[in-house]
Amino acid sequence: MTAYRHVALIGVGLLGGSIGSALRRGQLAERVVGYGRKRETLALAVQQGVCDQATTDFEAAVRGADLAIVCTPVQTVAKLALAAEPLLAEGGFITDVGSVKASIVAEVEANGGRRFVGSHPMAGSEKTGVEHSRADLFAGALSFVTPALASDPALVQRTVEFWSRLGCRVKQVSPEAHDVCVAATSHVPHLIASALAASTPDDVLDCVAGGWKDSTRVAAGDVEMWRQIVCENRAAAVAGLDRFLAAADTMRRSLAAGDDDVWVRILEEGKRRRDAVGS
Amino acid sequence: MTAYRHVALIGVGLLGGSIGSALRRGQLAERVVGYGRKRETLALAVQQGVCDQATTDFEAAVRGADLAIVCTPVQTVAKLALAAEPLLAEGGFITDVGSVKASIVAEVEANGGRRFVGSHPMAGSEKTGVEHSRADLFAGALSFVTPALASDPALVQRTVEFWSRLGCRVKQVSPEAHDVCVAATSHVPHLIASALAASTPDDVLDCVAGGWKDSTRVAAGDVEMWRQIVCENRAAAVAGLDRFLAAADTMRRSLAAGDDDVWVRILEEGKRRRDAVGS
Repeated sequence: MTAYRHVALIGVGLLGGSIGSALRRGQLAERVVGYGRKRETLALAVQQGVCDQATTDFEAAVRGADLAIVCTPVQTVAKLALAAEPLLAEGGFITDVGSVKASIVAEVEANGGRRFVGSHPMAGSEKTGVEHSRADLFAGALSFVTPALASDPALVQRTVEFWSRLGCRVKQVSPEAHDVCVAATSHVPHLIASALAASTPDDVLDCVAGGWKDSTRVAAGDVEMWRQIVCENRAAAVAGLDRFLAAADTMRRSLAAGDDDVWVRILEEGKRRRDAVGS
Repeated sequence: MTAYRHVALIGVGLLGGSIGSALRRGQLAERVVGYGRKRETLALAVQQGVCDQATTDFEAAVRGADLAIVCTPVQTVAKLALAAEPLLAEGGFITDVGSVKASIVAEVEANGGRRFVGSHPMAGSEKTGVEHSRADLFAGALSFVTPALASDPALVQRTVEFWSRLGCRVKQVSPEAHDVCVAATSHVPHLIASALAASTPDDVLDCVAGGWKDSTRVAAGDVEMWRQIVCENRAAAVAGLDRFLAAADTMRRSLAAGDDDVWVRILEEGKRRRDAVGS
Protein backbone atom coordinates (compact mmCIF):
# COMPACT_ATOMS: atom_id res chain seq x y z
CA MET A 1 0.00 0.00 0.00
CA THR A 2 1.31 3.45 -0.86
CA ALA A 3 1.61 6.14 1.84
CA TYR A 4 -0.67 8.57 -0.03
CA ARG A 5 -3.57 8.07 -2.40
CA HIS A 6 -3.79 11.45 -4.08
CA VAL A 7 -1.16 14.14 -3.58
CA ALA A 8 -1.81 17.61 -5.00
CA LEU A 9 1.26 19.71 -5.83
CA ILE A 10 0.15 23.34 -5.81
CA GLY A 11 2.96 24.80 -7.88
CA VAL A 12 5.46 22.67 -9.80
CA GLY A 13 8.73 24.64 -9.78
CA LEU A 14 12.05 23.46 -8.37
CA LEU A 15 10.60 22.37 -5.02
CA GLY A 16 7.16 21.12 -6.12
CA GLY A 17 8.78 19.26 -8.99
CA SER A 18 11.37 17.67 -6.75
CA ILE A 19 8.70 16.56 -4.26
CA GLY A 20 6.71 14.98 -7.10
CA SER A 21 9.77 13.18 -8.43
CA ALA A 22 10.67 11.90 -4.98
CA LEU A 23 7.12 10.67 -4.30
CA ARG A 24 6.95 8.87 -7.62
CA ARG A 25 10.45 7.40 -7.45
CA GLY A 26 9.74 6.14 -3.90
CA GLN A 27 6.32 4.82 -4.96
CA LEU A 28 4.87 6.78 -2.06
CA ALA A 29 1.72 7.98 -3.85
CA GLU A 30 -0.89 6.33 -6.06
CA ARG A 31 -1.38 9.57 -7.92
CA VAL A 32 0.42 12.91 -7.99
CA VAL A 33 -1.51 15.78 -9.57
CA GLY A 34 0.21 19.07 -10.38
CA TYR A 35 -1.50 22.44 -10.42
CA GLY A 36 0.00 25.49 -12.06
CA ARG A 37 -0.91 28.52 -14.13
CA LYS A 38 1.39 28.06 -17.11
CA ARG A 39 0.51 25.28 -19.52
CA GLU A 40 4.06 24.90 -20.76
CA THR A 41 5.41 24.39 -17.23
CA LEU A 42 2.74 21.77 -16.60
CA ALA A 43 3.55 19.96 -19.85
CA LEU A 44 7.22 19.92 -18.86
CA ALA A 45 6.32 18.61 -15.39
CA VAL A 46 4.40 15.66 -16.84
CA GLN A 47 7.11 15.01 -19.39
CA GLN A 48 9.79 14.96 -16.66
CA GLY A 49 7.78 12.48 -14.60
CA VAL A 50 7.16 14.95 -11.79
CA CYS A 51 3.43 14.17 -11.68
CA ASP A 52 0.94 11.78 -13.25
CA GLN A 53 -1.35 14.58 -14.37
CA ALA A 54 -1.22 18.35 -14.41
CA THR A 55 -3.90 20.96 -14.76
CA THR A 56 -4.55 24.70 -14.60
CA ASP A 57 -7.83 23.90 -12.79
CA PHE A 58 -7.14 24.33 -9.06
CA GLU A 59 -10.29 22.54 -7.93
CA ALA A 60 -9.71 19.56 -10.22
CA ALA A 61 -6.15 19.19 -8.95
CA VAL A 62 -6.95 19.37 -5.24
CA ARG A 63 -10.44 17.83 -4.86
CA GLY A 64 -10.19 14.54 -3.02
CA ALA A 65 -6.48 14.86 -2.16
CA ASP A 66 -5.30 13.33 1.10
CA LEU A 67 -2.23 15.61 0.98
CA ALA A 68 -1.77 19.00 -0.67
CA ILE A 69 1.60 20.78 -0.69
CA VAL A 70 1.73 24.47 -1.53
CA CYS A 71 4.97 25.19 -3.43
CA THR A 72 4.43 28.76 -4.61
CA PRO A 73 6.06 32.12 -3.76
CA VAL A 74 5.54 32.92 -0.08
CA GLN A 75 3.04 35.73 -0.49
CA THR A 76 0.50 33.38 -2.13
CA VAL A 77 0.88 30.38 0.20
CA ALA A 78 -1.76 31.20 2.85
CA LYS A 79 -4.43 32.05 0.28
CA LEU A 80 -3.86 28.82 -1.65
CA ALA A 81 -3.74 26.71 1.53
CA LEU A 82 -7.09 28.19 2.59
CA ALA A 83 -8.56 27.54 -0.86
CA ALA A 84 -7.36 23.94 -0.77
CA GLU A 85 -8.75 23.00 2.63
CA PRO A 86 -12.45 22.54 1.72
CA LEU A 87 -11.49 20.43 -1.31
CA LEU A 88 -9.46 17.79 0.60
CA ALA A 89 -10.60 14.24 1.18
CA GLU A 90 -11.85 13.44 4.70
CA GLY A 91 -8.79 13.46 7.00
CA GLY A 92 -6.55 15.15 4.42
CA PHE A 93 -4.02 17.83 5.31
CA ILE A 94 -1.92 20.60 3.80
CA THR A 95 1.66 21.71 4.17
CA ASP A 96 3.96 24.04 2.24
CA VAL A 97 7.62 24.80 1.47
CA GLY A 98 7.69 28.55 2.13
CA SER A 99 10.93 30.14 3.39
CA VAL A 100 9.07 32.23 5.98
CA LYS A 101 6.59 30.80 8.44
CA ALA A 102 5.15 33.22 11.03
CA SER A 103 3.17 35.35 8.57
CA ILE A 104 1.86 32.34 6.64
CA VAL A 105 0.84 30.34 9.70
CA ALA A 106 -0.84 33.39 11.27
CA GLU A 107 -2.78 34.22 8.11
CA VAL A 108 -4.02 30.66 7.67
CA GLU A 109 -5.07 30.48 11.30
CA ALA A 110 -6.75 33.88 11.33
CA ASN A 111 -8.85 32.80 8.37
CA GLY A 112 -10.02 29.56 9.93
CA GLY A 113 -7.64 27.07 8.32
CA ARG A 114 -7.44 24.00 10.56
CA ARG A 115 -5.70 21.35 8.45
CA PHE A 116 -2.54 23.25 7.56
CA VAL A 117 0.87 22.64 9.17
CA GLY A 118 3.71 24.87 7.89
CA SER A 119 7.00 23.40 6.65
CA HIS A 120 10.25 24.66 5.16
CA PRO A 121 12.73 22.24 3.62
CA MET A 122 16.17 23.93 3.38
CA ALA A 123 16.87 22.61 -0.07
CA GLY A 124 16.60 25.44 -2.54
CA SER A 125 19.13 26.62 -5.04
CA GLU A 126 19.84 29.75 -7.02
CA LYS A 127 18.30 27.76 -9.87
CA THR A 128 14.55 27.68 -10.15
CA GLY A 129 11.96 25.91 -12.29
CA VAL A 130 10.79 22.35 -12.80
CA GLU A 131 13.67 21.77 -15.25
CA HIS A 132 16.09 21.79 -12.29
CA SER A 133 13.99 19.52 -10.06
CA ARG A 134 15.50 16.27 -8.83
CA ALA A 135 14.14 13.34 -6.83
CA ASP A 136 17.10 13.49 -4.42
CA LEU A 137 16.91 17.23 -3.66
CA PHE A 138 15.69 16.50 -0.12
CA ALA A 139 17.98 13.58 0.73
CA GLY A 140 19.75 14.54 3.95
CA ALA A 141 18.35 18.10 3.93
CA LEU A 142 16.95 19.78 7.01
CA SER A 143 13.21 20.40 6.95
CA PHE A 144 11.52 22.63 9.50
CA VAL A 145 8.00 21.78 10.62
CA THR A 146 6.41 24.78 12.36
CA PRO A 147 3.11 24.03 14.11
CA ALA A 148 0.86 26.80 15.39
CA LEU A 149 -0.21 26.59 19.04
CA ALA A 150 -3.62 25.36 17.88
CA SER A 151 -2.34 22.76 15.39
CA ASP A 152 -3.77 19.25 15.59
CA PRO A 153 -0.89 17.10 16.95
CA ALA A 154 -1.87 14.24 14.65
CA LEU A 155 -1.44 16.45 11.59
CA VAL A 156 1.88 17.75 12.91
CA GLN A 157 3.01 14.15 13.25
CA ARG A 158 1.89 13.35 9.70
CA THR A 159 3.77 16.38 8.38
CA VAL A 160 6.95 15.27 10.15
CA GLU A 161 6.42 11.78 8.69
CA PHE A 162 6.02 13.21 5.19
CA TRP A 163 9.41 14.95 5.20
CA SER A 164 11.08 11.94 6.81
CA ARG A 165 9.78 9.80 3.95
CA LEU A 166 11.50 12.19 1.51
CA GLY A 167 14.80 11.67 3.35
CA CYS A 168 14.85 14.90 5.38
CA ARG A 169 16.10 15.44 8.90
CA VAL A 170 13.15 17.19 10.57
CA LYS A 171 13.34 19.99 13.14
CA GLN A 172 10.13 21.08 14.85
CA VAL A 173 10.10 24.70 16.04
CA SER A 174 7.62 27.57 16.38
CA PRO A 175 7.03 29.69 13.26
CA GLU A 176 8.63 32.67 15.02
CA ALA A 177 11.78 30.76 16.05
CA HIS A 178 12.04 29.45 12.48
CA ASP A 179 11.97 32.95 11.03
CA VAL A 180 14.69 34.25 13.35
CA CYS A 181 16.84 31.23 12.52
CA VAL A 182 16.53 31.47 8.74
CA ALA A 183 17.05 35.23 8.80
CA ALA A 184 20.55 34.49 10.12
CA THR A 185 21.29 31.41 8.06
CA SER A 186 19.64 32.28 4.75
CA HIS A 187 18.03 35.71 4.32
CA VAL A 188 20.90 37.85 5.64
CA PRO A 189 23.50 35.84 3.68
CA HIS A 190 21.37 36.42 0.58
CA LEU A 191 21.18 40.19 1.11
CA ILE A 192 24.93 40.37 1.78
CA ALA A 193 25.79 38.32 -1.30
CA SER A 194 23.62 40.68 -3.37
CA ALA A 195 25.28 43.78 -1.87
CA LEU A 196 28.70 42.27 -2.50
CA ALA A 197 27.94 41.40 -6.13
CA ALA A 198 26.24 44.76 -6.72
CA SER A 199 29.20 46.70 -5.29
CA THR A 200 31.86 44.87 -7.31
CA PRO A 201 32.95 47.20 -10.13
CA ASP A 202 31.96 45.96 -13.58
CA ASP A 203 35.50 46.35 -14.89
CA VAL A 204 36.93 43.68 -12.54
CA LEU A 205 34.27 41.02 -13.18
CA ASP A 206 36.63 39.27 -15.61
CA CYS A 207 39.15 38.82 -12.77
CA VAL A 208 37.00 36.98 -10.24
CA ALA A 209 37.81 33.44 -9.17
CA GLY A 210 36.33 30.76 -6.93
CA GLY A 211 36.15 32.89 -3.78
CA TRP A 212 33.99 35.64 -5.27
CA LYS A 213 31.89 33.09 -7.13
CA ASP A 214 31.14 31.10 -3.97
CA SER A 215 30.52 34.21 -1.88
CA THR A 216 28.00 35.62 -4.36
CA ARG A 217 26.42 32.42 -5.72
CA VAL A 218 23.00 32.96 -4.12
CA ALA A 219 22.79 36.49 -5.57
CA ALA A 220 21.82 34.83 -8.87
CA GLY A 221 18.53 33.73 -7.28
CA ASP A 222 15.14 34.90 -8.51
CA VAL A 223 14.68 38.52 -7.37
CA GLU A 224 10.89 38.48 -7.01
CA MET A 225 11.00 35.27 -4.98
CA TRP A 226 13.56 36.79 -2.62
CA ARG A 227 11.73 40.12 -2.44
CA GLN A 228 8.69 38.31 -1.08
CA ILE A 229 10.73 36.24 1.40
CA VAL A 230 12.57 39.23 2.83
CA CYS A 231 9.41 41.37 3.00
CA GLU A 232 7.66 38.66 5.00
CA ASN A 233 10.60 38.40 7.43
CA ARG A 234 11.52 42.07 7.60
CA ALA A 235 12.13 42.53 11.34
CA ALA A 236 14.34 39.45 11.71
CA ALA A 237 16.23 40.31 8.51
CA VAL A 238 16.95 43.86 9.76
CA ALA A 239 18.10 42.50 13.13
CA GLY A 240 20.37 39.98 11.40
CA LEU A 241 21.78 42.64 9.07
CA ASP A 242 22.52 44.83 12.11
CA ARG A 243 24.47 42.02 13.74
CA PHE A 244 26.48 41.54 10.54
CA LEU A 245 27.01 45.26 10.00
CA ALA A 246 28.35 45.66 13.53
CA ALA A 247 31.03 43.07 12.74
CA ALA A 248 31.76 44.51 9.28
CA ASP A 249 32.00 48.08 10.61
CA THR A 250 34.36 47.00 13.38
CA MET A 251 36.45 45.26 10.77
CA ARG A 252 36.56 48.32 8.54
CA ARG A 253 37.44 50.74 11.34
CA SER A 254 40.17 48.58 12.88
CA LEU A 255 41.70 47.80 9.47
CA ALA A 256 41.86 51.50 8.58
CA ALA A 257 43.32 52.33 11.99
CA GLY A 258 45.99 49.63 11.87
CA ASP A 259 44.38 47.99 14.90
CA ASP A 260 45.02 44.60 13.38
CA ASP A 261 44.30 42.44 16.42
CA VAL A 262 40.66 43.49 16.25
CA TRP A 263 39.79 42.46 12.70
CA VAL A 264 42.05 39.40 12.85
CA ARG A 265 39.96 38.26 15.82
CA ILE A 266 36.89 38.42 13.53
CA LEU A 267 38.72 36.27 10.94
CA GLU A 268 39.49 33.76 13.71
CA GLU A 269 35.91 33.75 14.97
CA GLY A 270 34.59 33.35 11.41
CA LYS A 271 36.96 30.46 10.74
CA ARG A 272 35.92 28.75 13.96
CA ARG A 273 32.23 28.84 12.99
CA ARG A 274 32.85 27.92 9.35
CA ASP A 275 35.04 24.97 10.36
CA ALA A 276 32.36 23.82 12.83
CA VAL A 277 29.87 23.54 9.96
CA GLY A 278 32.17 21.66 7.60
CA SER A 279 31.82 21.22 3.85
CA MET B 1 64.17 19.35 -24.68
CA THR B 2 62.40 20.46 -21.54
CA ALA B 3 61.45 24.09 -21.00
CA TYR B 4 63.45 24.39 -17.76
CA ARG B 5 66.56 22.69 -16.52
CA HIS B 6 66.36 23.34 -12.79
CA VAL B 7 63.28 24.85 -11.16
CA ALA B 8 63.49 25.84 -7.49
CA LEU B 9 60.18 25.88 -5.59
CA ILE B 10 60.70 28.17 -2.61
CA GLY B 11 57.85 26.90 -0.44
CA VAL B 12 55.89 23.71 -1.22
CA GLY B 13 52.38 24.33 0.07
CA LEU B 14 49.19 24.22 -2.00
CA LEU B 15 50.51 26.51 -4.74
CA GLY B 16 54.19 25.48 -4.78
CA GLY B 17 53.14 21.85 -4.69
CA SER B 18 50.66 22.29 -7.52
CA ILE B 19 53.27 24.08 -9.67
CA GLY B 20 55.72 21.23 -9.08
CA SER B 21 53.12 18.60 -9.98
CA ALA B 22 52.16 20.48 -13.13
CA LEU B 23 55.80 20.90 -14.21
CA ARG B 24 56.53 17.23 -13.67
CA ARG B 25 53.34 15.93 -15.26
CA GLY B 26 53.95 18.17 -18.29
CA GLN B 27 57.61 17.12 -18.43
CA LEU B 28 58.46 20.82 -18.46
CA ALA B 29 61.51 20.62 -16.18
CA GLU B 30 64.52 18.34 -15.95
CA ARG B 31 64.65 18.77 -12.21
CA VAL B 32 62.31 20.37 -9.65
CA VAL B 33 63.87 21.08 -6.26
CA GLY B 34 61.71 22.04 -3.30
CA TYR B 35 62.84 24.26 -0.45
CA GLY B 36 60.98 24.46 2.85
CA ARG B 37 61.55 24.71 6.57
CA LYS B 38 59.62 21.67 7.78
CA ARG B 39 61.16 18.27 7.09
CA GLU B 40 57.82 16.47 7.21
CA THR B 41 56.29 18.78 4.57
CA LEU B 42 59.31 18.21 2.32
CA ALA B 43 59.07 14.44 2.76
CA LEU B 44 55.38 14.59 1.82
CA ALA B 45 56.19 16.76 -1.21
CA VAL B 46 58.69 14.23 -2.55
CA GLN B 47 56.34 11.34 -1.77
CA GLN B 48 53.48 13.07 -3.67
CA GLY B 49 55.71 13.62 -6.70
CA VAL B 50 55.67 17.39 -6.35
CA CYS B 51 59.45 17.65 -6.71
CA ASP B 52 62.42 15.42 -7.48
CA GLN B 53 64.32 16.50 -4.38
CA ALA B 54 63.56 18.65 -1.35
CA THR B 55 65.82 20.32 1.18
CA THR B 56 65.82 22.72 4.11
CA ASP B 57 69.02 24.24 2.70
CA PHE B 58 67.96 27.35 0.73
CA GLU B 59 71.24 27.75 -1.10
CA ALA B 60 71.37 24.09 -2.15
CA ALA B 61 67.83 24.31 -3.52
CA VAL B 62 68.29 27.51 -5.51
CA ARG B 63 71.95 27.48 -6.66
CA GLY B 64 72.09 27.04 -10.42
CA ALA B 65 68.32 27.29 -10.99
CA ASP B 66 67.12 28.82 -14.25
CA LEU B 67 63.73 29.53 -12.62
CA ALA B 68 62.85 30.09 -8.96
CA ILE B 69 59.25 30.54 -7.82
CA VAL B 70 58.59 32.00 -4.38
CA CYS B 71 55.45 30.35 -2.96
CA THR B 72 55.47 31.54 0.64
CA PRO B 73 53.25 33.90 2.70
CA VAL B 74 53.31 37.38 1.17
CA GLN B 75 55.34 39.10 3.88
CA THR B 76 58.36 36.85 3.19
CA VAL B 77 58.29 36.91 -0.63
CA ALA B 78 60.52 39.94 -1.31
CA LYS B 79 63.22 38.84 1.12
CA LEU B 80 63.35 35.33 -0.37
CA ALA B 81 63.33 36.63 -3.95
CA LEU B 82 66.27 38.90 -3.13
CA ALA B 83 68.12 36.00 -1.46
CA ALA B 84 67.53 33.79 -4.50
CA GLU B 85 68.78 36.19 -7.16
CA PRO B 86 72.59 35.81 -6.68
CA LEU B 87 72.23 32.01 -6.62
CA LEU B 88 70.53 31.67 -10.03
CA ALA B 89 72.20 30.26 -13.14
CA GLU B 90 73.25 32.82 -15.76
CA GLY B 91 70.05 34.18 -17.36
CA GLY B 92 67.80 32.73 -14.68
CA PHE B 93 64.78 34.58 -13.28
CA ILE B 94 62.38 34.61 -10.35
CA THR B 95 58.63 34.96 -9.98
CA ASP B 96 56.15 34.39 -7.15
CA VAL B 97 52.50 33.59 -6.40
CA GLY B 98 51.73 36.27 -3.80
CA SER B 99 48.18 37.67 -3.56
CA VAL B 100 49.45 41.26 -3.29
CA LYS B 101 51.93 42.80 -5.66
CA ALA B 102 52.72 46.50 -5.15
CA SER B 103 54.51 46.11 -1.80
CA ILE B 104 56.47 43.04 -2.97
CA VAL B 105 57.54 44.51 -6.29
CA ALA B 106 58.56 47.79 -4.64
CA GLU B 107 60.59 46.06 -1.93
CA VAL B 108 62.45 43.87 -4.43
CA GLU B 109 63.21 46.84 -6.66
CA ALA B 110 64.28 49.10 -3.79
CA ASN B 111 66.79 46.45 -2.73
CA GLY B 112 68.33 46.03 -6.15
CA GLY B 113 66.52 42.91 -7.37
CA ARG B 114 66.66 42.89 -11.19
CA ARG B 115 65.58 39.38 -12.19
CA PHE B 116 62.22 39.24 -10.40
CA VAL B 117 58.82 39.62 -12.13
CA GLY B 118 55.80 39.39 -9.83
CA SER B 119 52.88 37.04 -10.53
CA HIS B 120 49.62 36.03 -8.94
CA PRO B 121 47.70 32.99 -10.16
CA MET B 122 44.06 33.20 -8.94
CA ALA B 123 43.87 29.56 -8.02
CA GLY B 124 43.89 29.27 -4.26
CA SER B 125 41.43 27.51 -2.07
CA GLU B 126 40.38 27.62 1.56
CA LYS B 127 42.46 24.45 1.80
CA THR B 128 46.19 24.82 2.24
CA GLY B 129 49.20 22.51 2.30
CA VAL B 130 50.96 20.25 -0.15
CA GLU B 131 48.45 17.48 0.61
CA HIS B 132 45.81 19.43 -1.34
CA SER B 133 48.06 20.26 -4.29
CA ARG B 134 47.03 19.12 -7.76
CA ALA B 135 48.66 19.25 -11.17
CA ASP B 136 45.52 20.77 -12.73
CA LEU B 137 45.03 23.57 -10.19
CA PHE B 138 46.06 26.18 -12.78
CA ALA B 139 44.23 24.81 -15.80
CA GLY B 140 42.06 27.64 -17.10
CA ALA B 141 42.83 29.90 -14.12
CA LEU B 142 43.68 33.57 -14.51
CA SER B 143 47.25 34.50 -13.64
CA PHE B 144 48.34 38.11 -13.24
CA VAL B 145 51.85 39.09 -14.28
CA THR B 146 52.77 42.48 -12.80
CA PRO B 147 56.00 44.00 -14.14
CA ALA B 148 57.64 46.99 -12.51
CA LEU B 149 58.44 49.96 -14.76
CA ALA B 150 62.10 48.88 -14.76
CA SER B 151 61.45 45.19 -15.47
CA ASP B 152 63.42 43.56 -18.29
CA PRO B 153 60.83 42.92 -21.05
CA ALA B 154 62.47 39.58 -21.89
CA LEU B 155 61.92 38.35 -18.33
CA VAL B 156 58.34 39.61 -18.35
CA GLN B 157 57.80 37.61 -21.53
CA ARG B 158 59.32 34.49 -19.96
CA THR B 159 57.08 34.89 -16.91
CA VAL B 160 53.99 35.12 -19.12
CA GLU B 161 55.20 32.04 -21.00
CA PHE B 162 55.68 30.13 -17.74
CA TRP B 163 52.03 30.58 -16.65
CA SER B 164 50.77 29.85 -20.14
CA ARG B 165 52.63 26.54 -20.05
CA LEU B 166 50.75 25.67 -16.84
CA GLY B 167 47.44 26.32 -18.61
CA CYS B 168 46.69 29.80 -17.25
CA ARG B 169 45.09 32.74 -19.01
CA VAL B 170 47.55 35.54 -18.35
CA LYS B 171 46.71 39.18 -17.66
CA GLN B 172 49.52 41.72 -17.53
CA VAL B 173 48.85 44.78 -15.35
CA SER B 174 50.78 47.12 -13.06
CA PRO B 175 51.28 45.94 -9.47
CA GLU B 176 49.05 48.80 -8.25
CA ALA B 177 46.18 48.00 -10.66
CA HIS B 178 46.45 44.36 -9.62
CA ASP B 179 46.05 45.22 -5.95
CA VAL B 180 42.96 47.36 -6.52
CA CYS B 181 41.41 44.61 -8.64
CA VAL B 182 42.00 41.75 -6.16
CA ALA B 183 40.85 43.89 -3.25
CA ALA B 184 37.41 43.94 -4.92
CA THR B 185 37.37 40.37 -6.22
CA SER B 186 39.14 38.53 -3.42
CA HIS B 187 40.18 40.44 -0.29
CA VAL B 188 36.89 42.23 0.38
CA PRO B 189 34.83 39.05 -0.28
CA HIS B 190 37.10 37.28 2.21
CA LEU B 191 36.60 39.91 4.92
CA ILE B 192 32.83 39.92 4.35
CA ALA B 193 32.61 36.13 4.48
CA SER B 194 34.49 36.20 7.78
CA ALA B 195 32.22 38.90 9.23
CA LEU B 196 29.17 36.94 8.10
CA ALA B 197 30.38 33.68 9.62
CA ALA B 198 31.53 35.44 12.80
CA SER B 199 28.18 37.19 13.25
CA THR B 200 26.05 34.06 12.75
CA PRO B 201 24.84 32.97 16.20
CA ASP B 202 26.31 29.66 17.35
CA ASP B 203 22.88 28.24 18.13
CA VAL B 204 21.73 28.34 14.50
CA LEU B 205 24.82 26.74 12.97
CA ASP B 206 23.03 23.39 12.82
CA CYS B 207 20.39 24.96 10.56
CA VAL B 208 22.59 26.29 7.76
CA ALA B 209 22.29 24.96 4.22
CA GLY B 210 24.01 25.46 0.87
CA GLY B 211 23.55 29.24 0.73
CA TRP B 212 25.34 30.02 4.00
CA LYS B 213 27.99 27.41 3.24
CA ASP B 214 28.79 28.92 -0.16
CA SER B 215 28.70 32.48 1.13
CA THR B 216 31.15 31.75 3.96
CA ARG B 217 33.36 29.08 2.34
CA VAL B 218 36.48 31.26 2.11
CA ALA B 219 36.22 32.17 5.81
CA ALA B 220 37.72 28.73 6.54
CA GLY B 221 41.00 29.92 4.99
CA ASP B 222 44.24 30.19 6.95
CA VAL B 223 44.00 33.27 9.20
CA GLU B 224 47.69 34.18 9.29
CA MET B 225 47.96 33.93 5.51
CA TRP B 226 44.99 36.26 5.09
CA ARG B 227 46.22 38.63 7.81
CA GLN B 228 49.39 39.19 5.80
CA ILE B 229 47.53 39.62 2.50
CA VAL B 230 45.10 42.19 3.88
CA CYS B 231 47.83 44.09 5.76
CA GLU B 232 49.83 44.40 2.54
CA ASN B 233 46.78 45.72 0.65
CA ARG B 234 45.25 47.81 3.41
CA ALA B 235 44.23 50.95 1.50
CA ALA B 236 42.55 49.11 -1.37
CA ALA B 237 40.82 46.74 1.05
CA VAL B 238 39.42 49.65 3.09
CA ALA B 239 38.22 51.37 -0.10
CA GLY B 240 36.56 48.15 -1.28
CA LEU B 241 34.93 47.59 2.11
CA ASP B 242 33.57 51.15 2.00
CA ARG B 243 31.99 50.50 -1.39
CA PHE B 244 30.38 47.33 -0.06
CA LEU B 245 29.26 48.94 3.20
CA ALA B 246 27.59 51.77 1.30
CA ALA B 247 25.45 49.20 -0.53
CA ALA B 248 24.79 47.14 2.62
CA ASP B 249 23.84 50.22 4.68
CA THR B 250 21.48 51.41 1.95
CA MET B 251 19.93 47.97 1.92
CA ARG B 252 19.50 47.93 5.69
CA ARG B 253 17.98 51.42 5.89
CA SER B 254 15.55 50.93 3.01
CA LEU B 255 14.47 47.51 4.29
CA ALA B 256 13.76 48.90 7.76
CA ALA B 257 11.88 51.86 6.28
CA GLY B 258 9.73 49.76 3.95
CA ASP B 259 11.35 51.51 0.99
CA ASP B 260 11.40 48.24 -0.88
CA ASP B 261 12.21 49.54 -4.35
CA VAL B 262 15.64 50.62 -3.11
CA TRP B 263 16.96 47.35 -1.74
CA VAL B 264 15.23 45.31 -4.47
CA ARG B 265 17.24 47.38 -6.98
CA ILE B 266 20.41 46.16 -5.22
CA LEU B 267 19.18 42.55 -5.56
CA GLU B 268 18.62 43.17 -9.27
CA GLU B 269 22.03 44.78 -9.72
CA GLY B 270 23.69 41.92 -7.82
CA LYS B 271 21.92 39.32 -9.94
CA ARG B 272 22.96 41.08 -13.14
CA ARG B 273 26.64 40.99 -12.16
CA ARG B 274 26.51 37.44 -10.79
CA ASP B 275 24.76 36.19 -13.93
CA ALA B 276 27.38 37.94 -16.08
CA VAL B 277 30.12 35.91 -14.39
CA GLY B 278 28.37 32.54 -14.67
CA SER B 279 29.09 29.38 -12.73
